[in-house]
Amino acid sequence: MKRIAIQGIAGSFHEDAARKYFEDDVEVVECKTFTTVCEMIDADKVDFAVMAIENSIAGSLLNNYQLIRDFHLRIIGEIYLHIQMNLLVNEGVTSADIQHIHSHPIALQQCMEFIESYYPNAKLHEKLDTAASAKLVAEEKMINAAAIGNLRSGELYGLKTLETGIETNKKNYTRFLILSKHGNPTKGTNKASVCFEVGHFYGSLARVLNTFAENQINLTKIQSVPIIGKPNEYTFHVDIEWENGENYDRAIHQVLKSASSLSILGEYKRGEIQNQ
Amino acid sequence: MKRIAIQGIAGSFHEDAARKYFEDDVEVVECKTFTTVCEMIDADKVDFAVMAIENSIAGSLLNNYQLIRDFHLRIIGEIYLHIQMNLLVNEGVTSADIQHIHSHPIALQQCMEFIESYYPNAKLHEKLDTAASAKLVAEEKMINAAAIGNLRSGELYGLKTLETGIETNKKNYTRFLILSKHGNPTKGTNKASVCFEVGHFYGSLARVLNTFAENQINLTKIQSVPIIGKPNEYTFHVDIEWENGENYDRAIHQVLKSASSLSILGEYKRGEIQNQ
Repeated sequence: MKRIAIQGIAGSFHEDAARKYFEDDVEVVECKTFTTVCEMIDADKVDFAVMAIENSIAGSLLNNYQLIRDFHLRIIGEIYLHIQMNLLVNEGVTSADIQHIHSHPIALQQCMEFIESYYPNAKLHEKLDTAASAKLVAEEKMINAAAIGNLRSGELYGLKTLETGIETNKKNYTRFLILSKHGNPTKGTNKASVCFEVGHFYGSLARVLNTFAENQINLTKIQSVPIIGKPNEYTFHVDIEWENGENYDRAIHQVLKSASSLSILGEYKRGEIQNQ
Repeated sequence: MKRIAIQGIAGSFHEDAARKYFEDDVEVVECKTFTTVCEMIDADKVDFAVMAIENSIAGSLLNNYQLIRDFHLRIIGEIYLHIQMNLLVNEGVTSADIQHIHSHPIALQQCMEFIESYYPNAKLHEKLDTAASAKLVAEEKMINAAAIGNLRSGELYGLKTLETGIETNKKNYTRFLILSKHGNPTKGTNKASVCFEVGHFYGSLARVLNTFAENQINLTKIQSVPIIGKPNEYTFHVDIEWENGENYDRAIHQVLKSASSLSILGEYKRGEIQNQ
């Protein structure tokens, strides 16, 4: 059984991601913050961590990139999770009873069309995470409230599912990274997350991207992040994919001639976005 | 007096940004969601909107880019705001009285070092926004609680500032966009926000960036956003700056030959990041 650090509590989407990646062979270690998650790996108290890095609606969690760099962690895998929201209540509670709805602010926002259609007068309570909301509704035996969260949190805390798939945008995915203290050499890697800086002149970024293109390396993500305290300078976070490992080796070598301080955050097998 | 739609309530960082950009000549119109903000402009109920688009720590608000496109709004300006956090309490309340702290989850996280040093036992209450927390602490005349927020919310709701600059990261900036229904032709623009798609082949993005570079156009932001429902296709959000408007005209024309569906979200004067 692998010990996996996650931000949040058991039942959360982070646990869903960990179970999916490690095929249920996991014991989750609950952490209050993403920083604590990294500290747990660093102190060898867990085997791996699973950490959200971007969501198709809300965007990237830039601070998590910074944590990965600060703690010198390695990305050893990725997994995409379809984010489906459900209305969870205690046994015996019906639609007509619901006067309060508890969830994470982003989850509430994601279900606003549903809430405004069916519960326009419900009082919304913003909580730290979706699983914690389910736990709260269950533990306090609330008879006039619902939580919004994933199915697992409902099962885990003994709530029943009153409505399923209540999110407005049905194609909402979160990408999670699997992190380790040491990168284990893996066969069959076809994706890498790298970050680099380039000189401050016209075309310095294009030169790096040309090198990738010339070596048949596909870009699947690019994001500039301003460097704090250095106006007009940026770190570029780039995800790249390849069919042929030799092309990747050659591209990285060539890129090092034009980029400064290239870091390979991890090389791994790409995850698939599954349809519903 | 200009009517400005903002997400959140009076006293918020959004109002700070609006006042700074329009030099206090503003009447803010409070909106619950960013969608409502856009609807207000669309219905001509306000003159402009001010909308956060990215924060140096938390990253981009991708959904806001989508709203700007969905409502066909024009970016007519930008402003950077230094995000400083303060501990706000009712008159007569001292440090020793504080058992509860109310604020937005990200604000609480940003002040965690301060909280853990001085108020390790305080119960933290997560609220929709910082200004709403200040309002709550004031209206309920809480004598054992503090709010964390900007100075203006403290002044507006009659709280005194117990501590100032309690954020961990002192170089935290949020960038706000000024939005209008119609783009007014402005002289002296030197920055644009554009988005485009490119063909699915090696080097298609590099080709666009080369065109900008050849025309001495500086990239100040680049971010890929996966297109929902189209695997392996991306929209690129790019901010560019120029010294010479003719170079910009030529670059846009040339880029249109390699990019598909280029949209200019707005052309405006670049905002300055001021030091503290």
